[in-house]
Amino acid sequence: MTKVKYWRNIDEKNTSADMKIIIVGATGTIGKHVVKALQHNHEIIKVGSKSGDFQVDISSTESIEKLFKQVGAFDALISTAGDAHFGPFDQLTDKDFRKGIDSKMMGQINLVLIGQHYINPKGSFTLTSGSLAEDPIVYAASVSSINAAVNGFVKGAAVEIAAGLRINAVAPGVVEESPDYFPYFPGDIPAKMDRVAQAYVKSVLGAQTGQVYKVVG
Amino acid sequence: MTKVKYWRNIDEKNTSADMKIIIVGATGTIGKHVVKALQHNHEIIKVGSKSGDFQVDISSTESIEKLFKQVGAFDALISTAGDAHFGPFDQLTDKDFRKGIDSKMMGQINLVLIGQHYINPKGSFTLTSGSLAEDPIVYAASVSSINAAVNGFVKGAAVEIAAGLRINAVAPGVVEESPDYFPYFPGDIPAKMDRVAQAYVKSVLGAQTGQVYKVVG
Repeated sequence: MTKVKYWRNIDEKNTSADMKIIIVGATGTIGKHVVKALQHNHEIIKVGSKSGDFQVDISSTESIEKLFKQVGAFDALISTAGDAHFGPFDQLTDKDFRKGIDSKMMGQINLVLIGQHYINPKGSFTLTSGSLAEDPIVYAASVSSINAAVNGFVKGAAVEIAAGLRINAVAPGVVEESPDYFPYFPGDIPAKMDRVAQAYVKSVLGAQTGQVYKVVG
Repeated sequence: MTKVKYWRNIDEKNTSADMKIIIVGATGTIGKHVVKALQHNHEIIKVGSKSGDFQVDISSTESIEKLFKQVGAFDALISTAGDAHFGPFDQLTDKDFRKGIDSKMMGQINLVLIGQHYINPKGSFTLTSGSLAEDPIVYAASVSSINAAVNGFVKGAAVEIAAGLRINAVAPGVVEESPDYFPYFPGDIPAKMDRVAQAYVKSVLGAQTGQVYKVVG
């Protein structure tokens, strides 16, 4: 009986619809599965670069500030947004690198730096890095660096962000719905989309902070 | 006898003065000890922002390109250069973050991206990150991120840089000659300068690549 009660309590928590969750990248390959995993029990604010309830250009701090002003206070922010440059190492330039810095690195980091002033107490941030931070492949030195930067930020932010707030990253490997990338990840088993989505659920509904949740197939 | 011969060979290799080693940050807290550890057996090109044999502004790709044109072909490049922003998380901005991106992150990365076109076969690059990438403290979220970005880059670059070239990072904790930082690293034993310097020696004279050598006290 104790066990049943325990699970009922967990269920009651998870089915409460009072959590307002912003998902930046909501219509992307990963984002749409995260929406699916959370939408039945929570108010989801879908944000995209061109689609969704609201639009944001994460490479612009002005655009991010405007987004938070429009959306107002929230309980969780998930980012599955951001690009970085793939290309041969002997041709890699500062300019190529800056694409990932402006987008996947500082785009996501600025969502937190600015979002910390709008988030509700006990709220959480969940960013997206990737397996390449520690498990590199050819053509992806800048992606490895950008992913690692996101992980390092999450660890550094977690020890200092306002008491009660949490921040984690999800680091997926190549995912099953991106077959164009498979040849670049020889021997890697593509991660199932529902498993990737559950890492975000764990970050938002769980209690941990400063973690990097790796999801590989 | 075999053993003696073995060590003689190692010694002959290490005492050969035909290695031309560029040290960017040669007059800095760590750099001067790295110079000391290597100068007796190698030709050291000391590079600083204002001092040394040559000057470079690592935040400028033009300045880096000019440096390599002046110095010419080399066997190893060590960077102990680059700054990043320390400050309270709730006041941290994109602009603060960019200081570290332009200096310690892209400054060092551009030394490799550009330097790969000037380095001799079998050469090596050794960059500097820091313990904060994985062992965060208050006021240093951007430093954790920048250090992690350098580590991620080294891992990504190592699997793709031209055959025979190597790249590693040294990740020191707070060092004994930086007492001003001690209060921010509670409980951390400051790393001895000669131990830190030996990590760079290991990277340059050793055979490994894609490694992050942690040096804490």
